[in-house]
Amino acid sequence: MPSDLFRALFAPQHVAIVGASDDGSKTTSRPVRFLQKHGFAGHITPINANRDTVAGLAAVPSITAARALDTSPIEHAFILTPQAAVAAAVENCIAADIRVATILAGGYADAGTEGQAAQQALVEHARAGGLRLLGPNSIGVVNTANGFCCTANAAFEVDRLLPGRLAFISQSGSMIGAVVSRAQAHGIGFGKLLSVGNEADLGLGDLGLMLAEDPDTDAIVLFLETIRDAAALADFAAAAARLGKPVAALKLGRSEIGQEMAMSHTGAMMGSDRLADALLRDLGIVRLERFEALIEAAPLLVQARRRYDGKLADRPVAVVTTTGGGAALVVDQLGLHGIDVAAPSAALFAQLQAACPIPLRHGRVLDLTLAGVRYDVMSTVLRLLADSGEFALVLTVVGSSAQFHPDLAVKPIIDSAASAAVPIAVFLTPAADESLMRLSAAGIPAFRTPETCAEAIIHALRPSHYRTLPTTKVPELAVTVPVRPDNEAAALDLLAAADLPTARRLLLPPTTQTCQHDLSYPLAAKVVSADLPHKTDVGGVRLNIANADSLVLALRDIAASVAKAAPTARLQGFMLQEMTSGTAEVIVGFQRTALGDFVTVGAGGIHAEVLRDLAVRRAPVDSATARTMIDELRIAAILKGSRRQTPADIPALARFIAGFSSLCATLDWIGEAEVNPLILRPAGEGVVAVDCLITAVDHKGSSHV
Amino acid sequence: MPSDLFRALFAPQHVAIVGASDDGSKTTSRPVRFLQKHGFAGHITPINANRDTVAGLAAVPSITAARALDTSPIEHAFILTPQAAVAAAVENCIAADIRVATILAGGYADAGTEGQAAQQALVEHARAGGLRLLGPNSIGVVNTANGFCCTANAAFEVDRLLPGRLAFISQSGSMIGAVVSRAQAHGIGFGKLLSVGNEADLGLGDLGLMLAEDPDTDAIVLFLETIRDAAALADFAAAAARLGKPVAALKLGRSEIGQEMAMSHTGAMMGSDRLADALLRDLGIVRLERFEALIEAAPLLVQARRRYDGKLADRPVAVVTTTGGGAALVVDQLGLHGIDVAAPSAALFAQLQAACPIPLRHGRVLDLTLAGVRYDVMSTVLRLLADSGEFALVLTVVGSSAQFHPDLAVKPIIDSAASAAVPIAVFLTPAADESLMRLSAAGIPAFRTPETCAEAIIHALRPSHYRTLPTTKVPELAVTVPVRPDNEAAALDLLAAADLPTARRLLLPPTTQTCQHDLSYPLAAKVVSADLPHKTDVGGVRLNIANADSLVLALRDIAASVAKAAPTARLQGFMLQEMTSGTAEVIVGFQRTALGDFVTVGAGGIHAEVLRDLAVRRAPVDSATARTMIDELRIAAILKGSRRQTPADIPALARFIAGFSSLCATLDWIGEAEVNPLILRPAGEGVVAVDCLITAVDHKGSSHV
Repeated sequence: MPSDLFRALFAPQHVAIVGASDDGSKTTSRPVRFLQKHGFAGHITPINANRDTVAGLAAVPSITAARALDTSPIEHAFILTPQAAVAAAVENCIAADIRVATILAGGYADAGTEGQAAQQALVEHARAGGLRLLGPNSIGVVNTANGFCCTANAAFEVDRLLPGRLAFISQSGSMIGAVVSRAQAHGIGFGKLLSVGNEADLGLGDLGLMLAEDPDTDAIVLFLETIRDAAALADFAAAAARLGKPVAALKLGRSEIGQEMAMSHTGAMMGSDRLADALLRDLGIVRLERFEALIEAAPLLVQARRRYDGKLADRPVAVVTTTGGGAALVVDQLGLHGIDVAAPSAALFAQLQAACPIPLRHGRVLDLTLAGVRYDVMSTVLRLLADSGEFALVLTVVGSSAQFHPDLAVKPIIDSAASAAVPIAVFLTPAADESLMRLSAAGIPAFRTPETCAEAIIHALRPSHYRTLPTTKVPELAVTVPVRPDNEAAALDLLAAADLPTARRLLLPPTTQTCQHDLSYPLAAKVVSADLPHKTDVGGVRLNIANADSLVLALRDIAASVAKAAPTARLQGFMLQEMTSGTAEVIVGFQRTALGDFVTVGAGGIHAEVLRDLAVRRAPVDSATARTMIDELRIAAILKGSRRQTPADIPALARFIAGFSSLCATLDWIGEAEVNPLILRPAGEGVVAVDCLITAVDHKGSSHV
Repeated sequence: MPSDLFRALFAPQHVAIVGASDDGSKTTSRPVRFLQKHGFAGHITPINANRDTVAGLAAVPSITAARALDTSPIEHAFILTPQAAVAAAVENCIAADIRVATILAGGYADAGTEGQAAQQALVEHARAGGLRLLGPNSIGVVNTANGFCCTANAAFEVDRLLPGRLAFISQSGSMIGAVVSRAQAHGIGFGKLLSVGNEADLGLGDLGLMLAEDPDTDAIVLFLETIRDAAALADFAAAAARLGKPVAALKLGRSEIGQEMAMSHTGAMMGSDRLADALLRDLGIVRLERFEALIEAAPLLVQARRRYDGKLADRPVAVVTTTGGGAALVVDQLGLHGIDVAAPSAALFAQLQAACPIPLRHGRVLDLTLAGVRYDVMSTVLRLLADSGEFALVLTVVGSSAQFHPDLAVKPIIDSAASAAVPIAVFLTPAADESLMRLSAAGIPAFRTPETCAEAIIHALRPSHYRTLPTTKVPELAVTVPVRPDNEAAALDLLAAADLPTARRLLLPPTTQTCQHDLSYPLAAKVVSADLPHKTDVGGVRLNIANADSLVLALRDIAASVAKAAPTARLQGFMLQEMTSGTAEVIVGFQRTALGDFVTVGAGGIHAEVLRDLAVRRAPVDSATARTMIDELRIAAILKGSRRQTPADIPALARFIAGFSSLCATLDWIGEAEVNPLILRPAGEGVVAVDCLITAVDHKGSSHV
């Protein structure tokens, strides 16, 4: 049962177009024209103070005047006026009990601080009055099913809008047009399209959630410039996952330098796009690489989700073709991503050969050459492959016949796909729009380029899954940690209190002269001071201290160096720490950001800089998820013990990541934390945190709290 | 002045189609039909023993009979017969003094050993008779300028072939069709297209060379499955470079596991595709990533080469748009590859603002919004940007107007580009075939997808250059090296004899009991045996030997371990070697392969496996080229001394790579060689080869020679 809001957004009984122009050359003439052109059956009231009619419809001077009309109540207003007149229009919408207003004008949060304030005022006013807003800076909303083409985007000037069961939400208004234009040329229909503008009130997450729950929507495609509300996005993604509806996003900003997160290594290595990437994947949202994948990928994702929902995804792909070179283009791309393209079994091949009048080669690609244009041959081969149980997906690569004989080329595919046990996808090597359109109309995932075809197949066979965050509680710390740790020693104490393994150590007071201890040599000695986050730079660290005499000298050296390099630093003491040898080092980090909490594990030491080999998840993670993070690292092979390298204690590393992520996520005053290095010991011998830096949320970007 | 062969291939006065069918449904009917359809003005003689006419033309029963006709001599024969009849047809072609025969049938080298022999016989026979062959397994040759559409590829069924100045050579026959089909739909014309088939006689290199020298060809595009003759490819690339004609290739096999090159690390890490990649780049051939780049990239590459030939390539790209989201799609891709997209200077911006009726934002992307559809605004802006001297290229991203008003959308671009100082490239965000066609027809590089647009711009601004190999001579070795080195010690002696720095060492006889030496401790001791390439595996290595006593023990240990682990190995002695400490390790390798000689430098130690961080060139290289190899490595930053890492002696490394590559390339008995590790010492202190393995060509894949 759709909500009032859903109906008002996509299927209002009565829409008012505020500022509608009668001059067809003006942008503000478009919404009324498009609504008429695409057969919107609801009532349309143009609001124009200077004309009696707009596009042949009776115009009224104001929303207020429109209320006096003997019509059904206005549910949706599209406000096209310049920014200066928007506030008054919103006021009138509230007075008229309108459910939702879409605002075209920009100049709000998109235009700096002053605009931000105006936007805030607008939203507060609307909310207080029961009016929901789409935008501002929204180019509108379209529902192709009922012709509610309530947009100023020029692309909807087309004569006919293709209906469909895909939805598109875009943060760029112009992309609505580009996508619908390309999709229509491809025979792919979008049912609902939304430009969310500044998301002042209704955001991506709210709207996505509505579409996930919409029975007329099979999949939701997103064009993202940013992520404004990660929590709402997560709610939407959770609903989509529950309802089995794929969500796929193209997000700009792969190359953006991104927000500096200076203090910790992992932060500095990780622009905000990397966090967004981790977020999307952790939410089960497919991140698309190519523009045309916005159009082409969803039909295959929907079929894959429906037909086998991950269950057959371990099986290889079958490829049948009439053009070897064309097939190789896709296979090469699939191979790059580790998707297996396999030959049929001997028994299946015998059946395939029996169906084909020419001798076939038994290989990864079944090249039917000219025999593939025969209906009986292609349809039998497709049916045999799809129903064999040997493959997760059948890819058909069609050559020139797709261009010159679309009927012959696509009919066997369409007929076979309807009853096939697994999805059949198609790549057409020539320019063959007619064949693309026919395949798309029949619901067959069809692709213009080998690269986008491979991209869609990869995501169809390796679907992302929405990960529910494990529940955590504030940890019962084994010892009382009275203050927020403001230096390395205190940070290690906090980890230890939460049962995370740390190097054995001892804190000596700053005035120490003797150094009684029961630690085992060799030792490290480090200055402890909240004022000195970079201890090494001020000569505050000595390593590999072999005996008591050396230790005395080392402490004296450190004190002297620090006194010289940082005379004003307040010393909190000296830490003695047992040196730990291991098979490898990693960095484990935590960041609390506007996109949520994230935990990171990455290659340590020199690898950190060169490899930028990181795995990122929303925090917290459990040990099982931590294992998947470790497996993602390029250094995983080394950690697991390749080439005479001793295997590290992977389970202990996974437990550490899980415990650390849980501790940091729970203690909500932690802004960033980083264990660097975490020493990995041989299998069975655990891991040891040697250094830790914790920064509080209210002091982000400063040094220690 | 075109050669006889060139004329016979692309513009024969008289062509014979051997095995031409009169049945329009047969593949063998196509060539005659296509030649007629596309207006070939030369004489066409169908050869068909069973019919008097084919497609309305007088047919003759054999080539021999055709000679008796009162026509100009046959210059080109297209042999469509089944394989069994090919040899006889070739025989007849020789007897008839025909210059070139194109052979459609497969079943030769494409079908195993027997076919290979048949192919060899065919070629030898043809060559002896003065006949050149295209194919076998060639789908034909096309010259759109004169309608010589001598092919069996179905794509040429089109009514009209677009002429053009691009050439296409393909190892896949079907790709000829796919490319011409897509190019025509894009308004891009190809002048000459060739399917080279098995390249039994005329190969890619020969044909490319002819096209490079063809005054009607501006650029050559290649579809490669393999590289059969690297030397001929190099000759072609050198000619193209000299004549200023871009060559761009899409090569399959990025994901192929490739030929195993087991013994050396660099070999094992490097499939043959990686060598092919290095070869193409070293030859100045652009390697394309995306299928549609085969069609879309060349026009921009040609313009870039012509207009500024690398000279302005350091300047940034200007982007002007009517759709911010669309522009961001390309800018994001460019940014990923380090291409700078910059805002105009303040002075230029003032001029741009003056030309525009709406307020502009002064940023990297000049978003004209609706004002961009005005002819005067767009053309003034384009002219100002292109002629400012601030940019290497102007990218225009056009929105919906390209779909609905192609005239308005493309006219200012076409008019401005004609006289612009730098290339103007265009990306169209909607489906807008008409605009694409108009832009292409006017010679403007126009792109369907942001990814291919960015790919072409990247290659246009960072052109590959053909590198001429430095001349080398057999090195005058400082000492006589009497035999080919069959073990590490001898290999190091060879390096030293060629003045390459090696660790100080001493070879002791296998029966040694004492060990007098003038080396400095710490030392390494290693067993020396041609039978033991993996010394460590048999306990044949001891490191960090601190003094004479330890040395005696170490030698005894080694002898005992080896005697136990490899009792039959013939010992050649023991090597003592000074231990060298350094700032980093690299691996330097050499491989003599079917694709040519290659030198490799890569990250050493643990990095070798994890990073697969290699730079590859044809060997030999000079020091300057070696420097570019070092700069390509991801570890370059570390080698140069980042984050308190001591900078390594980069010039010495470059000299080593150059000297090693020259030595190995010159000594033609060397199949593979690898220095692993090469220790890099701090700047000014040189490099030191610690271990070296050399394998002779005739023993590749075995252990030491």
